[in-house]
Amino acid sequence: MIRLILAAAVMALAPAAHAADQRQMDENKKAVIEFYDAAINQKNFDAAAKFLGPRYTQHNPRAADGPEGLKAFLAFLREKVPDYHSDIKRVFTDGDYVILHVHNIPAPGNRGNAIVDIFKLESGKIVEHWDVRQEIPEQPANSNTMF
Amino acid sequence: MIRLILAAAVMALAPAAHAADQRQMDENKKAVIEFYDAAINQKNFDAAAKFLGPRYTQHNPRAADGPEGLKAFLAFLREKVPDYHSDIKRVFTDGDYVILHVHNIPAPGNRGNAIVDIFKLESGKIVEHWDVRQEIPEQPANSNTMF
Repeated sequence: MIRLILAAAVMALAPAAHAADQRQMDENKKAVIEFYDAAINQKNFDAAAKFLGPRYTQHNPRAADGPEGLKAFLAFLREKVPDYHSDIKRVFTDGDYVILHVHNIPAPGNRGNAIVDIFKLESGKIVEHWDVRQEIPEQPANSNTMF
Repeated sequence: MIRLILAAAVMALAPAAHAADQRQMDENKKAVIEFYDAAINQKNFDAAAKFLGPRYTQHNPRAADGPEGLKAFLAFLREKVPDYHSDIKRVFTDGDYVILHVHNIPAPGNRGNAIVDIFKLESGKIVEHWDVRQEIPEQPANSNTMF
């Protein structure tokens, strides 16, 4: 009987470990969504910066590396395309990563871009970013939209 | 005592359910990697088609909808850019989705494109595809590469 209880107790440890992973992944997702809104839609570097970790390794080829690169990029958006904004269509998480599939509209009336952003987090803070961006064509080969 | 055993047994059900999800996610990941190699690198529609479900909803704006659209797209690649290939840099899974971050080289000597592909699976078969594609620029604003 004791053996059975022990076996059941050991099996019961697994969901606890997984629950911790899932909780961190849910927190990462929430942090990235808030960061994204502060950065891209509000273009507010100070609000966005609180989600960053001790580094911000930038792979977007249009932005300089680090938090200073992000700051300059947001200042550029604010000045040149003040209505630039993105709507998050899908959010995925896997381990330390959060992936966003977004519809970006640089200016009113523009068909915009499809973008996928990939963020890596450490201890709940964003430390690295990749993205890929494609203009939505006027005449696509199918009617399913890019989203 | 019986109550304790029951409680432990109920807790122990959780990892079994999760293990099933994780197993399906691992199988989805494997299916997408094999599909991607068959389709994009081998350009072999018949080898790729066995990974498709009862539909293949296409969101890539350069490809027609459905399995026939994929077939035509692969025939186009085979004829126009026979050396077109992609190296998978990262693979993510979340629920029914598998996401690939790839370096695509259309032809030898070309810097190529960064692409993110998103696949949705049902019962282990691919039923929907989105992607976003960006040319790797000659002079990026940072030295971290797009990967």
